[in-house]
Amino acid sequence: MSAVAEVIYKFNCDIIDTVADLIPAVKPQMAFYEKYGSYGVATFEKTVAYAKSKGLVVIEDAKRNDIGNTAKAYADGHLGVVETLDGSYISAIDVDFLTITPFLGSESLNPFVDVCKKNNKGIFVLVKTSNTSSGEIQDVNTKDGISISQSIAKYVAEQSEAVVGKYGYSSIGAVVGATYPEEAVAVRKIMSKSYLLVPGYGVQGGGAKDTLPCFNSDGLGAIINSSRGILYTHMSDEERNACTKERYLNSVRNAVVEMQKDIYSTLKENFHKMIY
Amino acid sequence: MSAVAEVIYKFNCDIIDTVADLIPAVKPQMAFYEKYGSYGVATFEKTVAYAKSKGLVVIEDAKRNDIGNTAKAYADGHLGVVETLDGSYISAIDVDFLTITPFLGSESLNPFVDVCKKNNKGIFVLVKTSNTSSGEIQDVNTKDGISISQSIAKYVAEQSEAVVGKYGYSSIGAVVGATYPEEAVAVRKIMSKSYLLVPGYGVQGGGAKDTLPCFNSDGLGAIINSSRGILYTHMSDEERNACTKERYLNSVRNAVVEMQKDIYSTLKENFHKMIY
Repeated sequence: MSAVAEVIYKFNCDIIDTVADLIPAVKPQMAFYEKYGSYGVATFEKTVAYAKSKGLVVIEDAKRNDIGNTAKAYADGHLGVVETLDGSYISAIDVDFLTITPFLGSESLNPFVDVCKKNNKGIFVLVKTSNTSSGEIQDVNTKDGISISQSIAKYVAEQSEAVVGKYGYSSIGAVVGATYPEEAVAVRKIMSKSYLLVPGYGVQGGGAKDTLPCFNSDGLGAIINSSRGILYTHMSDEERNACTKERYLNSVRNAVVEMQKDIYSTLKENFHKMIY
Repeated sequence: MSAVAEVIYKFNCDIIDTVADLIPAVKPQMAFYEKYGSYGVATFEKTVAYAKSKGLVVIEDAKRNDIGNTAKAYADGHLGVVETLDGSYISAIDVDFLTITPFLGSESLNPFVDVCKKNNKGIFVLVKTSNTSSGEIQDVNTKDGISISQSIAKYVAEQSEAVVGKYGYSSIGAVVGATYPEEAVAVRKIMSKSYLLVPGYGVQGGGAKDTLPCFNSDGLGAIINSSRGILYTHMSDEERNACTKERYLNSVRNAVVEMQKDIYSTLKENFHKMIY
């Protein structure tokens, strides 16, 4: 298990070195580390530290949550500090942002918001996920005539007011998939000050056009994520296994450049008020 | 951090030694380990192994989930096996049961069910949680005129059919809080073959009477959980800090005996068809 963990860490460092000058943030997925137990979590922690040393913002995709004190334990471990035996406080996993599941209601989300305020960190609450069965719960209409996604968006919007930075955006954000553009329009309108973390571009079927509803009219406010689209799909498995490390990493870099061109040109065509 | 982890492990071993002959299962809460990062997760793994060595079933409360391949990674890491560099397969966290969040829909739950079938493990899907804000999402009515809790219960009931053991119960179960007895009646009826994991007894306000709707009329089918009620509330903080280890552990054992008496006598009063 420690050998697997070491290989994953080296791979991550190579990828980070290859793309760090092009991108603002990385979004490692905790499940793919946790599957190797504590060895995997240790690799996750080392990867976070390495990405930060290269100036990257780290968004941990772990979709955590629980109730009350237990939610606070997750918030402290991932975004805050924990007490040690001598009474000092240190950071454990120490990412910048964490994704959060809202199934247990607002009481389960509040401890994360509190830790964000205190430690200058952020969260992305799942509002509308990109997968095919996301509607089973998220599209159900509440008594107020809005979807559950929209009711969570309202909670995010309320909480986001308390942590707004100098560019007018809050670190209390939401996950909104690129695969459901219509619902994205509705929730973007509700959460005007939040960054939306947008999965679903590329492999999951969303194109650059589908990400547009996640941006505000200033051309800001959305963080478009691509994972497998960058790491895997620009080469067949055979090609990847046969080629040199340099050629593979070069193709990873090219995939990032192509994705950015695609999104940027689509933004320029569609937003006339873009401020950058 | 490793010093904290070591103290927690020793505490866990003492508690397990004190109560292992009285109880069928322990439910460690991953959040309180994960808050110490990889050191905490390593302690969790050691605790799981120790509890199993004493003949206890281990229910990991981690409320995990994600979509597709990522859900499979969680299922493999917690309940299944993962591949190592030499192509062999080993278990990572290796618990018997895991709690799962259903917010992403059935597509996110299926990989866990598959791993349970393959590895003879189990899950408890959150259906109705014990906290005060659980109704914000879980009580919303779907188009079919049933609550979201009840629609998840239907999914659990369907899946539970495939993994039924010799006593007629399935390892595909659900979390149903003791704090909402009316909703418990409704979902117990839907999931007749599932074990219900029932938090909320004791500290969270549920009494033995409130757990009754979670049992079937044979007096089986519910696993009543108490954590803080066993570990903390039978002594004040001052008493606990001042007393000997033996006295504290003795009071823990007494708290388990009292809880069992309370539940067992309530069951006997209310079920005439009890089979044990």
